[in-house]
Amino acid sequence: MPLLDSDRLFPLESDARGLARALYDTVADLPIISPHGHTDPRWYATDEAFPDPAQLLVTPDHYVFRMLCSQGIALTDLGVPRADGGPTETDGRKIWHLFAQNYHLFRGTPSRLWLDHAFQTIFGFDVPLSTATADDYYDRIASALATPEFRPRALFDRFNIEVISTTDGALDDLRWHQMIRDSGWTGRVVPAYRPDAVVDPEFTGFAQNVARLGEITGEDTTTWQGYLNAHRIRRAFFKSYGCTSSDHGHATARTEDLPQDQAALLFAKALRGECSAEEADAFRGQMLTEMARMSLDDGLVLQIHPGSRRNHSDPMLAMFGRDKGFDIPGRTDYVAALRPLLNAVGMDPRLSVIVFTLDESSYARELAPLAGVYPALKLGPAWWFHDSAEGMRRFREMTTETAGFYNTVGFNDDTRAYLSIPARHDVARRVDCAFLATLVRTGRLAEGDAYEVAHDLAYRLAKQAYRL
Amino acid sequence: MPLLDSDRLFPLESDARGLARALYDTVADLPIISPHGHTDPRWYATDEAFPDPAQLLVTPDHYVFRMLCSQGIALTDLGVPRADGGPTETDGRKIWHLFAQNYHLFRGTPSRLWLDHAFQTIFGFDVPLSTATADDYYDRIASALATPEFRPRALFDRFNIEVISTTDGALDDLRWHQMIRDSGWTGRVVPAYRPDAVVDPEFTGFAQNVARLGEITGEDTTTWQGYLNAHRIRRAFFKSYGCTSSDHGHATARTEDLPQDQAALLFAKALRGECSAEEADAFRGQMLTEMARMSLDDGLVLQIHPGSRRNHSDPMLAMFGRDKGFDIPGRTDYVAALRPLLNAVGMDPRLSVIVFTLDESSYARELAPLAGVYPALKLGPAWWFHDSAEGMRRFREMTTETAGFYNTVGFNDDTRAYLSIPARHDVARRVDCAFLATLVRTGRLAEGDAYEVAHDLAYRLAKQAYRL
Amino acid sequence: MPLLDSDRLFPLESDARGLARALYDTVADLPIISPHGHTDPRWYATDEAFPDPAQLLVTPDHYVFRMLCSQGIALTDLGVPRADGGPTETDGRKIWHLFAQNYHLFRGTPSRLWLDHAFQTIFGFDVPLSTATADDYYDRIASALATPEFRPRALFDRFNIEVISTTDGALDDLRWHQMIRDSGWTGRVVPAYRPDAVVDPEFTGFAQNVARLGEITGEDTTTWQGYLNAHRIRRAFFKSYGCTSSDHGHATARTEDLPQDQAALLFAKALRGECSAEEADAFRGQMLTEMARMSLDDGLVLQIHPGSRRNHSDPMLAMFGRDKGFDIPGRTDYVAALRPLLNAVGMDPRLSVIVFTLDESSYARELAPLAGVYPALKLGPAWWFHDSAEGMRRFREMTTETAGFYNTVGFNDDTRAYLSIPARHDVARRVDCAFLATLVRTGRLAEGDAYEVAHDLAYRLAKQAYRL
Repeated sequence: MPLLDSDRLFPLESDARGLARALYDTVADLPIISPHGHTDPRWYATDEAFPDPAQLLVTPDHYVFRMLCSQGIALTDLGVPRADGGPTETDGRKIWHLFAQNYHLFRGTPSRLWLDHAFQTIFGFDVPLSTATADDYYDRIASALATPEFRPRALFDRFNIEVISTTDGALDDLRWHQMIRDSGWTGRVVPAYRPDAVVDPEFTGFAQNVARLGEITGEDTTTWQGYLNAHRIRRAFFKSYGCTSSDHGHATARTEDLPQDQAALLFAKALRGECSAEEADAFRGQMLTEMARMSLDDGLVLQIHPGSRRNHSDPMLAMFGRDKGFDIPGRTDYVAALRPLLNAVGMDPRLSVIVFTLDESSYARELAPLAGVYPALKLGPAWWFHDSAEGMRRFREMTTETAGFYNTVGFNDDTRAYLSIPARHDVARRVDCAFLATLVRTGRLAEGDAYEVAHDLAYRLAKQAYRL
Repeated sequence: MPLLDSDRLFPLESDARGLARALYDTVADLPIISPHGHTDPRWYATDEAFPDPAQLLVTPDHYVFRMLCSQGIALTDLGVPRADGGPTETDGRKIWHLFAQNYHLFRGTPSRLWLDHAFQTIFGFDVPLSTATADDYYDRIASALATPEFRPRALFDRFNIEVISTTDGALDDLRWHQMIRDSGWTGRVVPAYRPDAVVDPEFTGFAQNVARLGEITGEDTTTWQGYLNAHRIRRAFFKSYGCTSSDHGHATARTEDLPQDQAALLFAKALRGECSAEEADAFRGQMLTEMARMSLDDGLVLQIHPGSRRNHSDPMLAMFGRDKGFDIPGRTDYVAALRPLLNAVGMDPRLSVIVFTLDESSYARELAPLAGVYPALKLGPAWWFHDSAEGMRRFREMTTETAGFYNTVGFNDDTRAYLSIPARHDVARRVDCAFLATLVRTGRLAEGDAYEVAHDLAYRLAKQAYRL
Repeated sequence: MPLLDSDRLFPLESDARGLARALYDTVADLPIISPHGHTDPRWYATDEAFPDPAQLLVTPDHYVFRMLCSQGIALTDLGVPRADGGPTETDGRKIWHLFAQNYHLFRGTPSRLWLDHAFQTIFGFDVPLSTATADDYYDRIASALATPEFRPRALFDRFNIEVISTTDGALDDLRWHQMIRDSGWTGRVVPAYRPDAVVDPEFTGFAQNVARLGEITGEDTTTWQGYLNAHRIRRAFFKSYGCTSSDHGHATARTEDLPQDQAALLFAKALRGECSAEEADAFRGQMLTEMARMSLDDGLVLQIHPGSRRNHSDPMLAMFGRDKGFDIPGRTDYVAALRPLLNAVGMDPRLSVIVFTLDESSYARELAPLAGVYPALKLGPAWWFHDSAEGMRRFREMTTETAGFYNTVGFNDDTRAYLSIPARHDVARRVDCAFLATLVRTGRLAEGDAYEVAHDLAYRLAKQAYRL
């Protein structure tokens, strides 16, 4: 008996379900466009085997270990490395057993759906993971990982990935991207320009980072113009590796469009480490507008991912560092926040600004009305905690009537969990087909149009919006 | 093959669908009560033929041109007039082709449903609008508009409108309403009292507007009491034309109930143009409470429409002026904001205050609990961007359990798009019947009661709440 | 013909409905765990007959009289006592007729479902309440109430209540709980520690209340340490009566973790009545963290119920006092507000903090992400205005994917309406089974797992989370 229901995520009612299935059948095997994600370019460069099952599926996946943590399981028992280098569990099988024993915690979650998808379609399991099956799971996955068929590049082909974007710091030398290129392998892996370390005055080592930016570009980054030039140079460097987008993960959606002399003064203050929190926020907001202006020149797509309050727990940040499941969304305003940027460049159809949210209350109220009128603005898909069946359904239900389908940009997986990529795209395709089938069967969309939209959402819009 | 599915917007499941259809059949042909809208009284007064198809259906409809704009189509290519009188497209057929060519953008939107409803039921089309059919559409619509059957009054009868309210400035002489009266035509068209220009200190020409208000009422509007009297006189004047409501579209739901001497001082400051933004907001809030008190005397219903951030784009405001699709909703608070007014008059069952929202997060949290206890407060229907199948469904799902049906006021179309009026009321009737059928088939409402509620929502509640 | 549909609240689609029914059949008769409520311990202590039907079902139920009030019915006509002791209706039959005459107002509301459930299952009615049946209803209910089978303890057994918690002020002598114990009756009724009167500097008589706290504990509550000790002593006293939880109904979710000397200074200021509103709020927030620390010692579960703006109407507060249906929810933030408490004790799996909300926009955005990672945090069920079919559905749809089922705590009825308790638990069990059946039939949950989760949600999780 399979782990997966072949009609999963389709409407309950049989006629709509049949149409959803028919729509899905036309898009299920389309290549994956993955324009925003966090897989490690080193995997594709070196094509080494993945380590043991726990190191692949449990220890690095914050969706997984945060749920276990919420029920009192220590991160050290899951092998999560400590910031001080202190002891953490290294026995993969032991970690795997702890995970299997608590697999019921994932009932009803997307993680369960993604994991079961990988277990069934990648490793061929047909009985659920449990304490009883933990060893069999561990052994079979471990064996598989040792074979060539489970190396990163082989999986890339098997996953039918047409192109994938990694996310790379502005100071990154893109050595793995170079190595991929040198290797002659034809898989298309491109970088994205993520300049947090050199645009956020509150980032650790900001001034040194900006100095380093100057060194590697040959610009005088102690001046505002030199600093902007250095960005332009790095963006061109990234573009030379196929990069088509920049990515910005600020706490708020604030943008600014200050007069250049004021921006220059703010930059100088930031370099001196003298910005107040408010000034640092203003500077980050200014840089979004600057990046948008650069996009008008070089064509990079601008992605804005606001709304996460990072590192909510002080003791956990001290013990384990960043990105350990303690980033919590908060209320996020877009209407006033995006106005300076939109006033500056929002009417230019050559520009593509893709905005994401963790605050679903903004979908129908703010984001759809904004994207439904500004040529430069598009809506990114349901993101992070909302990258789920219910989250995707709410996204479509709350944005389509005002923004339509064509101000959205298809799906991106946003993940560092390589094995979950096919599962995530599959969920998105199913949920979108279910939504379309429901529209058709309630007289809101012509059946022929639904087939076209299904293809657009699964494939074409991501390619077009990200210029891939 | 028809453009419209006769079972559109009903539940998927066949038994609930059958009941929804049965409920709908009892209300589908009820007369239209349109207590709040923006059609032009001149249409009914002069009964002239509408201009060409583009001027009727594309150029004046901000739902339509904002979507085209969002995909990079210039408003001038759609014939939208420029503020500076500069060149804009005047060739109706050319505009129509551009619209037809991009008709796919409206897939899944209420605009598509409204347009197809007009195309099929008013003009008799049975193939969808597309590049291929654009000329046929244009020609047939243009021909029809030239015939007597498509004049405003003939359509009024055909639409089965029992009464429609226009929206008119406080300084308006209601000449078109007078002309309707003089004409002997029996269609019931009534004005609504919209005093923005004379209650908002930030409105262009506020002081002159108030002076003009004094002239036409014979009151000394340089004094607070004279100013209030002038409002009373204008309200009586509007009432003499059948007006039953006033309408207030502030940015927030703020109300105030200041001591009269403080209100007088604030008014004086406003006349001198010396109000801060905060004071202007306070004055607008005070005027809501003053209007509510006047309502206790003259019986006009008070409508509050807060939450739109007007004219979001500076360049578009400069180029095209107001009401060009760049009004964007924002978060709106009601609990603290309405308290002064409700403390003053909220317990008086003679008063009818109808409140609308663009912030759906307030439905279940704030508006239903308020309307579910204050006798004076009622909930207006899903509004503007939420005047759609999903928006109406969310409105019922999030308000009914706390406010019931009888603290809501049926539907209003709020539109200046005359041809969309039957379509909009039809959507509301269908969505409400679908909701009621779902309640019945899930054991939350008796079937017999559902028929009564369906009639109330489609007809009776609007008549009663607006005293029409 | 019964008042209740036996398949009520199940999915429309027949296959999912069949599974929901099958799931429900396994949990319908489980004992009721009622870990948070407001029934009067005196009922169980004295076991006296309830007064007339109106005094039982209309006059004390704010869900019922607020809806009647919203349509202009005076609370005095419903027998609600006036704060000044002035005249109010005392004729139960007259009140009952007014209620019956307006029973249509409750269409589509949970109150209607709860009342019909009581009418059918407790009193055996099979025709709906209406003007025509009002007298029959009144007579039969009045007769029943006079019989031993309708005394509180008999109903306790009939309702199959395994344990019920009352809510009791910190200064309460728990005399009724003592009387229950002395009586030898074996029904399990336990108190909950609700210290508002002695932790909220803005509570009427705060300083006197704290002085009284000192008297009854023998501690010097003029000092911070004595005050904290007095809490510890009262908590132990409550525990000796079976108490397992404390309960905190602040306006916001704010917590603080001030240095102890600062907390002591703030406490001294509070005792002197010199706290600003901001300081009073900080003190309440500090006390949540102090209570959490005490919980680590004594094991009491900490419940936080924020978000209600109490006594919205000044005239109604003056005329009728508190708790008269004029408490209105407002926006509530959790991410920043809970951080001090969570930083202090949130990683300790021995602690159980249960948080509720009236602001559904926080479910997916804030509460599920927080509960999905902090071991100490659990989510209370849909609460108050959201204790309804739609409210419960939204709760599951918006929390499950991020927090799973096992960071929620089952259902609690939170009611003072004794006869509604079986109905409310029945609604929760049905809605949860409908949700689970939908997950199974859309391939998101294994059918076998659904049976286990149904049992957990109906019974086990409440017992476990509340340590009952």
